Parts: sequence; structure tokens; C-alpha cells
Amino acid sequence: MTGNGFGEIFRFTTFGESHGAAIGCVVEGVPANIPLQENDIQTALDRRRPGRSRFTTQRNEKDAVQILSGVFNGMTTGTPIGLLIENADHRSADYSEIAQKFRPAHADYPYFLKYGNRDYRGGGRSSARETALRVAAGALAVKVLRHFLNSPFDITAGLIQVGSEKTDVWNAAEINNNALFCPDSDAVSRFEKVIDDARAANDSVGAIIEIRAAGFPAGLGEPVYDRLDADLAKALMSINAVKGVEIGDGFAAARSTGRQNADEMTESANGTVFLSNHAGGILGGLSTGQPIIARIAVKPTPSVASPLKTVSADGRATVIQTTGRHDPCVGIRAVPVAEAMTACVLADHLLRLRAQYTV
Amino acid sequence: MTGNGFGEIFRFTTFGESHGAAIGCVVEGVPANIPLQENDIQTALDRRRPGRSRFTTQRNEKDAVQILSGVFNGMTTGTPIGLLIENADHRSADYSEIAQKFRPAHADYPYFLKYGNRDYRGGGRSSARETALRVAAGALAVKVLRHFLNSPFDITAGLIQVGSEKTDVWNAAEINNNALFCPDSDAVSRFEKVIDDARAANDSVGAIIEIRAAGFPAGLGEPVYDRLDADLAKALMSINAVKGVEIGDGFAAARSTGRQNADEMTESANGTVFLSNHAGGILGGLSTGQPIIARIAVKPTPSVASPLKTVSADGRATVIQTTGRHDPCVGIRAVPVAEAMTACVLADHLLRLRAQYTV
Amino acid sequence: MTGNGFGEIFRFTTFGESHGAAIGCVVEGVPANIPLQENDIQTALDRRRPGRSRFTTQRNEKDAVQILSGVFNGMTTGTPIGLLIENADHRSADYSEIAQKFRPAHADYPYFLKYGNRDYRGGGRSSARETALRVAAGALAVKVLRHFLNSPFDITAGLIQVGSEKTDVWNAAEINNNALFCPDSDAVSRFEKVIDDARAANDSVGAIIEIRAAGFPAGLGEPVYDRLDADLAKALMSINAVKGVEIGDGFAAARSTGRQNADEMTESANGTVFLSNHAGGILGGLSTGQPIIARIAVKPTPSVASPLKTVSADGRATVIQTTGRHDPCVGIRAVPVAEAMTACVLADHLLRLRAQYTV
Amino acid sequence: MTGNGFGEIFRFTTFGESHGAAIGCVVEGVPANIPLQENDIQTALDRRRPGRSRFTTQRNEKDAVQILSGVFNGMTTGTPIGLLIENADHRSADYSEIAQKFRPAHADYPYFLKYGNRDYRGGGRSSARETALRVAAGALAVKVLRHFLNSPFDITAGLIQVGSEKTDVWNAAEINNNALFCPDSDAVSRFEKVIDDARAANDSVGAIIEIRAAGFPAGLGEPVYDRLDADLAKALMSINAVKGVEIGDGFAAARSTGRQNADEMTESANGTVFLSNHAGGILGGLSTGQPIIARIAVKPTPSVASPLKTVSADGRATVIQTTGRHDPCVGIRAVPVAEAMTACVLADHLLRLRAQYTV
Repeated sequence: MTGNGFGEIFRFTTFGESHGAAIGCVVEGVPANIPLQENDIQTALDRRRPGRSRFTTQRNEKDAVQILSGVFNGMTTGTPIGLLIENADHRSADYSEIAQKFRPAHADYPYFLKYGNRDYRGGGRSSARETALRVAAGALAVKVLRHFLNSPFDITAGLIQVGSEKTDVWNAAEINNNALFCPDSDAVSRFEKVIDDARAANDSVGAIIEIRAAGFPAGLGEPVYDRLDADLAKALMSINAVKGVEIGDGFAAARSTGRQNADEMTESANGTVFLSNHAGGILGGLSTGQPIIARIAVKPTPSVASPLKTVSADGRATVIQTTGRHDPCVGIRAVPVAEAMTACVLADHLLRLRAQYTV
Repeated sequence: MTGNGFGEIFRFTTFGESHGAAIGCVVEGVPANIPLQENDIQTALDRRRPGRSRFTTQRNEKDAVQILSGVFNGMTTGTPIGLLIENADHRSADYSEIAQKFRPAHADYPYFLKYGNRDYRGGGRSSARETALRVAAGALAVKVLRHFLNSPFDITAGLIQVGSEKTDVWNAAEINNNALFCPDSDAVSRFEKVIDDARAANDSVGAIIEIRAAGFPAGLGEPVYDRLDADLAKALMSINAVKGVEIGDGFAAARSTGRQNADEMTESANGTVFLSNHAGGILGGLSTGQPIIARIAVKPTPSVASPLKTVSADGRATVIQTTGRHDPCVGIRAVPVAEAMTACVLADHLLRLRAQYTV
Repeated sequence: MTGNGFGEIFRFTTFGESHGAAIGCVVEGVPANIPLQENDIQTALDRRRPGRSRFTTQRNEKDAVQILSGVFNGMTTGTPIGLLIENADHRSADYSEIAQKFRPAHADYPYFLKYGNRDYRGGGRSSARETALRVAAGALAVKVLRHFLNSPFDITAGLIQVGSEKTDVWNAAEINNNALFCPDSDAVSRFEKVIDDARAANDSVGAIIEIRAAGFPAGLGEPVYDRLDADLAKALMSINAVKGVEIGDGFAAARSTGRQNADEMTESANGTVFLSNHAGGILGGLSTGQPIIARIAVKPTPSVASPLKTVSADGRATVIQTTGRHDPCVGIRAVPVAEAMTACVLADHLLRLRAQYTV
Repeated sequence: MTGNGFGEIFRFTTFGESHGAAIGCVVEGVPANIPLQENDIQTALDRRRPGRSRFTTQRNEKDAVQILSGVFNGMTTGTPIGLLIENADHRSADYSEIAQKFRPAHADYPYFLKYGNRDYRGGGRSSARETALRVAAGALAVKVLRHFLNSPFDITAGLIQVGSEKTDVWNAAEINNNALFCPDSDAVSRFEKVIDDARAANDSVGAIIEIRAAGFPAGLGEPVYDRLDADLAKALMSINAVKGVEIGDGFAAARSTGRQNADEMTESANGTVFLSNHAGGILGGLSTGQPIIARIAVKPTPSVASPLKTVSADGRATVIQTTGRHDPCVGIRAVPVAEAMTACVLADHLLRLRAQYTV
């Protein structure tokens, strides 16, 4: 209950800090007899790995995952899967400044107030490094979904806005063709320019990510508190730097009317079909069978190479200027993390649905 | 785990449908020796009650709450508090149409697909009637917060946008002076016109609610999954018709830069102070001591008195036109519900913080 | 988490005190489309009801259960089932003595130390009156088991020891033929004599109950902490007055050897069969398919009509002598409660098993 | 929820099999600023370690624990503590026989039925090897208890019965003076003879362990389902080979009367005192301030060097005779495990109590 795990039946619990010996997690709820090898997870981790392009931190982490338990002869055994990633690049940086000063917009200050004691090296537990484990768990969630769903499904996230530049084009096939996970090849250069400009100005930029999950059965979600959208909101808001979550039309729905917002239905050769998807595939907290659509707002990287007013650990006014290897747009690497968290929510709810109903 | 409860230590579990005999809840985690009488809860319920103005449904529910347990001689005993609200106005309406047709943008369709069996009277379990219990639980959450916090605190929600009309004025004292819970007296007539126009057009409108919680200690939230913002996101997204949640600058943060978004700090006579609050009072998933700010998007009431295309329970294309007593803007009555859910999250996290640290 | 609920997927949460207005519970996890009426629950409650014989308290409670939600047109809807039992006989007894003195072997003293405030009327929350709700939940658990299991199953508890009188005969058909729920008709008069003698001596007696559950699939239980035996131990130990739980040979296993204790297996026309059942149907925390056997020790009723040394609320040495309507052997009415808790554990684990595996 | 964790606020989640690469756990709920080094945990592990005497398996495991996270500069940080123990001695034994045959009284058979796939090497997940992690978590639980309790406390378990040989002497100081953890120096040789005789007969023996926890405040436990005794029962029953749990007089209470069983109270210079402790320090599910007393029955090691009837994986009748390095009395090494689980329950409930009340 103290907050380091996520999920009810498909559940993972993580540990580890940015600059400790290792990070790791325990993944529960994966049924037996699913083929699993480290490479299945590594492939997912490599998408999030730092240093893939000039737009992400140059910290050198190969993020090599080890499976410590739960797999025998290449198959899951139904027992918990222990995963470990050693921290390769916890280089002997000079942390004396951030040990003594709170970085604005970072977790430093409230962690210090709460715990009195913090591992200031690279953000410690509050570092986005922990999200590698979410991606690893997400790879297992996809395995679970594939084990139980008989028809194709897809969970894809893409970067649709950087700063004020945005796109409405969603070409899923394009997402892995560029370093920004952008679904619109025409937008890539616009997005890159925003990021390059920010870095040149010793600044950083925010972003918006869209997540689309298609091919899932109706009925996922447990009213009225563990609604599918409520659990997605929690999962996505728990990702570092995320400040907003919306489902379907989201905040735009506030400006629309009941008639505009209604997803009318009709019959077709394939049964009931919706004529629109303002709801983002979720009504009353349950999936409807339509594609599930969510968007998240990611704030700009708080660590910027510009001087900012702050206070020291002993409460004196001072100035801090971050140095080192920071992502100019943390929204980029949050893309595979958002995908992973969505997969975890869906896998958990599929298991929850199975408990009572035949899927 | 099947979704009818919320919270870990301060926890409530609800039951009941729109048109059943009664709705009720069990509230756990309220410490002993807090003065409590029904009127403490009733006052909160009366703010959400239908029929307070022409802008809300005219369903006649006095929402009279009974305390069935957990209180002895006017004081809580530390045992669970059972609350019951009888459904007074489950009038013998003609439900034959909605029994046979799915209302677009309602929970009808996915409930039918999941459960095969649904109480179609007034939405059954998916009805916003359930939110009365959230308000009741919220009243107890406020009691818990008051029991433990030594200094004043405040949790206030207000309607800041209806359709495309919005306000930036936040005059908390104004909120209870108008039927819309609007913090800006100048905006009230604009908002009213939007709602009246929508109703005149047999339509409905969406809205945005802002929630402000001030006076809370730093350190609330349990990284990294039960972050305060993640739990708020879940709590607020679980409210009927909510399609988006944002904290602090929220989606606007995506358009800003790291320097703009940084809440710089300095020292003052009162200790460390922040120079802005883009973060909405939460960093790294922990409260910072600044006011906690959230906003939610509420979609327009799906029940409109206009014909909409839909399908029948046997899958045939048809048309439905809702009749009856519906809120033209469900965002209005969602205001006290949003306040209540915020109070529940804060009370729960205050207890969780107390478990390990001295607050 | 504050302790008023039991179960993960099949879960019930109770409220209410001995002498409050009502007791009630919320039962979650019951799938839709199960026929359910109040009488299904009432029948189970009537077995536990006080006043059925001279061996139980003469408190006059008809324990009439009302279903407040979750059922529509005689079928469950998949939403939570709210149950309410009004306290009919909270007669205006004189509680001045127990308000001021702690009854030895009762919960009075630690409740007072913990909560500072207690509802002393009849034991308040610590009263065995709460167990009526367990029986009600158990009736629903049986419904869930029947919904999913295709072959016959049976969960039966019986009184096998009272004071030092015991029986080894298990004639299940006999259990409902006598007021003691004793499976051995020859033992009934021996047991009755022990109870009558105790009452005549202004005393009370302890008892042992055996629970047998047959017809359940192998694989129930979630290693290594939510083992089936661990969850049964918790469920049964949580019943008022229970001081011991054993599975299979239980404490006798401590005196045996590995060869004696081994349940050897062989093949038969019906597949693998065990040649004995020392394990009580559970190995490694999982059901084996053999009958599940548990026994619980119930302490003697602490309220006796004899003077006992105690202290007053202000810490002075004094003497207390209970008057009123107490069961001379609480073990009798604990029989249907033990059955119910066992059913709840099995229903919950069946749902948990279904989540991941095909049962 | 899938069963690999224990506790609500002080919670640990384990992974790993007997013969995998490593076993490990994540411990949550340890507050910040507690001095912690690996040796604090290692000392506890060494007591459970195999090969300490001729009475335990000669498997050579040094059980060297590594702290991977949650500690910085020798102090806990309030973040989860990741612990890892590499499996040193997973020697290349010949497992072909147990891969093909089910060992009677082992978890083999139900694991196979449930999971279809099992790691048969040394018992896999069902091996008592997992209990090393419980001992590690218990060492942290003791740290938590010491952090919050201002006065001395003690949690000690001892072996009080082996086969039919038993002792009533409890000399706590003696427990670490012999390889059996026996509190009675005079009983040691009797116990040793039983064990040696069993081994000489290619057999094994059961045992009874008593656990005593003194110095704990009143009020621990959350009525009515998370009672302290209920959680202890679950914790202890979840230990491998445990078949019974009793609190205080336990099963003997069934034979006593209300007058005999009453723990009368009186006043003293030190306030209220009890005149006996039949209750084992728990009434109504709450600790009373008296010493908490529990006993558990441990079945004989199922692996014996004698032929036993069983079936093969394909259902044919056969015979199995275990070879290899097995404890002749698993009850011995269960002693520190029982202590650890008790510490974990008490630490968790102390944190739960703190959440609502001042301890």
C-alpha cells in the first residue's frame, strides 16, 4: 500500500534509484505457459533507452534486463517474475550542488520535507530512471494480453505536440521511423526545431502524447471507482512529469453539446457500430469495444542550463543552474512509458473481467 | 477489489442504484472521538441535491441521510460508519423505451455487453445518483482532516467554464452565492445563458470545474504509483461524465518551457516561499505545501431531448429521444462531488503519511 | 484497509454494532444473472439466529435481511449487493455496570485503550452480532460457487467437541437434526449435558468445530502468501472467540513422521487418487482436489453469571458478574459462521483462479 | 493481489525459486532515517541458514544478502528496499525423477494441476528457500518497531515439541545456545534423539513452535477482519509446512470453561494488571498489552528416504524415494521464520495504528 506497485491481478512492484546499484521489479499475475525470454523485454526497453538520439540524455545506460525468476525452460511458470537492471552509468559526478540546493520544479523539495533524507544523486527514487521498469512490466502485460485475446490488438503511443507545434495526423506506421515517436513524418522537422531551439536557449519544452489502444473487448473496467478511465488516469498521471490526462475528446468535451458529443450507433453487417468516438472508447467506466484514446500532457524538463532562483537545504535564497545530461523534452522518452502503463492497465482489467465473466 | 470502494485507510464502499430501495455506503478509517451528527453530512448533501435551481434535474430527492453505525453518544467510535439514503422519488416512470434501446454516450451499451443484465431504470448503478454517497463520504473526510490538522485548510471547487464561456476570476466567497457554484459573479449570467440556450435547443452543455485545496502539509502522496496527483486523477476521473483531469498548468504546461514552468523559490520571513505555482502544489507526486490546484472536464449531459441514432437491445437501428428530468449541465452538480473526492484523497493520504511520519 | 472487509474479488464489507439501529454489508464480486431473493439469504441466517434452542441466547432477533441493491427482476446485476438487518431487540437494558467495568476475556478493555470511546451496549462492534453478516455473505458465496462449478460441492461444519466431550463420528446428514449442529446423534446428549452443567454452574464451555468442504477443484490458493490455508486461517481466526485453527491433521501432524503424514497416491479408474488425507486437502497452499478439512477452537463464552475480578474504567479493582441472555457455548452458533467464512474464502479463490486459468 | 506479498503498510513482496539465479524481495513501508546496513539483515539470515548443524540440510548456501536500494549513506531513505540473495548452490543434481513423479505431501501435484508447468528443481517456488526472504523482511520489521517504540520489546520463538517429546520450560536465554532453538536445555537431548532416530529410520518428524512477543502496546489490530490474531494466523499459516496456529490457550481453550479462561484483572502500582494470560495477549482482535503468545504445528518434512507410493506425471502408479539433502525436522529452521513473520505483522499493525491514533 505504500505506493511502489501498480495493478490488482496483473501487478508489478518496483524498487531502485537513479544512482543505486540496480533497479528492479516483481511482476505478478502472468499466467504459466507463456514463452518468455529476456529479449522480449529488452526490445521494449531499448525504445526507452537514453542516448538513442540527440534529443535524449546522453547518459550511457544499456538497460540490460535480467530475468531472475518465474521462467523455466523458456516458459513462464505462473510464479512472480523478478527483473533486474543494473545501473551501469552511475558515474562519479559532482552532486555537491544539488545536495545543497533544491532544483525548482523537481521532487527535491517535497522529498526533503517528507523524508528528511534523500538520495540526491540524479533524483534518486523520483528519477525517470524508474520508468524503465514500467516499460519492462508493460512488455509482460502485452504478453498476457496476447495470451488471452484471440484477435489482433494494438497499443500505440505517439508524440503529437511539442511546445506549441502540433499535428492531427496519425500514421501509426511512422512512429518508429523517427526519434521523436511522432506519427506524422511531416511534423518531425517542426518538432525537432522546437526542441533544438529550446536547448540552444538553455531551456526545455513540454509535449503531448496520444495513446491509442484498439482491438479490446467491451466491458473492461470495474464501476464505479475502478473504472477503466479512472485507472488509466492514475496510471498515466503517475508517470514522471505528466500534468494532465484526458480520454476521448477530453477537455474539448467541455465546450461541446450533448448532441455533438453523442457517439450515435447503428447496425451494420458487422453488428452494432458507432458513428463517432468522442468518448475515446470508454462509457460509464467500461470499454465499449471502440478504440481507447487518451492523451497526456508532459511538462518541460525541469532541469535547464539556465540560472533559477531557489533555496538551499538550510533555507537561504540562492541560484541553481543545472549542468549535465538532460533530455530537452522528456515527453519523447515518456512515449514508450505511456504505452507500457496503458498495457498494464488493460492486462489487469482483462484478468479482472475474466474472474467473473467469459471474455 | 471489484471497484466499489475508494481509499486505503480512509476508505468508503458504496452500493445502490438510481431506482432501487436505497443507496448507502460504509466509511472506514474515521478515528474515534470526533463529534458527528447526521446534519454534518446532510449540509454537504444539500449542496448536491437535485432541484435546487432550474439548472438541475427536478427529480425530487431530499437525500436524507441516516447514520446507522459508528457513532455513539454523538461521537465517532472508530468503527465503520454505515450511511443510508432512501430513494424517495423512484417514480413509476415508463422505462420501456430505454429498456429496449441504448442511449448514446450513456453507460447503457457497455453495461449490457458486460453484464447481460442491467437495471435500466434511470441508469441503475451508472447513474450520477451514486455521487450523493461521495459527497457524504467527503463530509466525513473533512471531519478527519479537521481532527488532525491544527491550522485552517480549505477545499473549494467552482465552475469556471460552461460550453465556451469561461472565467479566470476566482472569488471563493462567491461560489455559494449562485446556483452554478461559479466563483465569478460577473460570469454567472453568461454561464446561465449558455445553459438556457442549450436547453431551449433540446441540447446540453459541458463544463470545466476547478478545485483548490489550501492549507495542507507537504509530503502527502506515496511515490511512485500512489502519487497524490495520480490518486487525485483517479478520484476525479471516476466521477460520472468526467473526461479529463489536469493538475496545475496541466495541458498548458505542454506548451511552456522549463524556465517558464519552473516554480522558483526564495526565502522569506515565513520561510521558503514559491514565486509561482505552475505545479499546482504537487511535485514528484508529493504535495509541496502550496495550494493544490486541479481542473476537470465534464462532458455535456448525454440525455438530450433530441432524436439520436442508436440501436435496440436486439441490434436494430433505431432512434431515441430522451424525455424526463435531466440536468442540462451535469457539470453544476459535479462541483460538490469534485470537492468531496478531493477531500477523500487528502484525508486518506494524511492518514497514510501519519502512519510513518509525524505530521 | 481498516479491517471491515474480507476478500479480494468476492469481497464483503460490514458495518454495525450490537445495539445500533441496524447492521449491514456490501457484497462485491457476485456476477450478474444469478437468481437471488431475500429468502436465499434468510434461510442461512435462520440457522445462526439466536433463540433457536435453550442452548443459545434468548435475545429475540428475527434477523430479517433486506436486499437494498444489486438485484433487478430477481437476478443479480453484477453491481454491489447491499444488505441490511435492523436490530429489533436492542432493549433498554441497564448497561451502567458494563459501561464502568471491563468484562474479563471480552474486547472491552483493549477497545477502551485503543479507541477511548466505546459503544458498551452488548459489546458494540465486537459483538458476535456482526457474524450475522458473515452468514449472509456466505449465502452469496455459495451462490457464486454454484454459478461456476459444474459438479456438486458441499461445505459443512459441525460441532465435534464441547468441553472435554468429543466425537469422531461425522454423519453430515445428522447436523441439522439437532440444535448443536453435531454430526453424531449419539454425542448430542453428552454435549448437551456439558452445556447444561456449565450453565447450572453459572459457567460456560468451549468447543471445537470441524469444517469439511468437498467437490472443489485443485489449484485454489495463491502462493506464497495468499495460500488457501493461510486465507482460511485468517477467515476462521477472525470469527469471534476463535483461538485456534488447524488444517488436516493440524497439531497432530507435529507428533507424526514423514512417512505417516505422507498422503500417498495411486492411479484408479477415476484417475489419480490419494490413499489418505492428512493434508486436509491443501498442499503448498493449493487445494489438491481432496476434501478440505479444517478445525477451529472456540473459547468458552466470556460472559458468565459468576463474579470475576476486574477493574473499572478509572482503574480501580472491582468485581463484575454478567447478567443477561448469553450463549452458554458460543461454539454452537459459530458453526454456521465457520461454514460461511469457508464459503467466502472458496468463492474468492475460485474467482481469483478464473482470472488466470480455465477452471 | 496474486499472493506474493504480505502486509498493508509495512509490506514485502518476494520472488524467486529454489534453483533459479536468485531470490529477492521489495520491502515497502520502512520510514526514512533508520540506520541500516547489510549486516543487520545478514545476522538474521544466518540463524535460518542451512548447514548450521547436523539437524538441517547440508545444502551450502551462505545466503549473502545485498541491499540494492532504499539506503543512502547508511540510512534508509523512505523508498522501497530491494534485497537480493543469489542462489549459490543450485548444483546440477539429477532432477529427472522428481520431474516425472509427484512427491507425496509436497506441493508438486497441485502446482502441476494448476500451472501445468513447474520448476521441479528443489521445489521451485514452493521450496522453503523462499522463507529466507521472510527472515530478511523480519529484520527490517524489527528495525521499524525499534524506530517507533520507546520501550524495550522482544519477539522470540522456540521449539517446544518434536514428535511426541515436549517441554513446558521457557528459558528464552537458552534458545540461541542450541542448534534446535529450544528454550529448555534439558529437553535438547530428548529432541535430538527423536530427530536422529527419525533420520536413522529414513523418516522425519514434526514439531511445535511457540512465539512470544512482549512489550507491545495495546490496540494493535483492526477489527473485525484484520484482527491481530487473524493476521498472525494468516502470516504463520503461510509458512511452509505449517498446519495449525493457535493463540494463547488455543485448542486447550475448547476444553476449559468461561471462569477458567477469564483473564481476571486488578489494579496495581503499575496500573491495571492481568492475573493470567489465557488469551495470549489478544482480545477482540486487539492486543491487550500482555505478551502475545502463539503456537504453530509444523508437519514432518515430506521428503523422506523411504519408498512412497505415488503417480507419475502421466498418471501411472509408481514409487518414489527421495534422495538428497533434506532437513529431518523442518520445524527447526521454521523457528526464525515464525519470529520474522510475527515481527512483520506487528510492524504493519503498529504503522496502521499510528495512522489514526497516537501510540
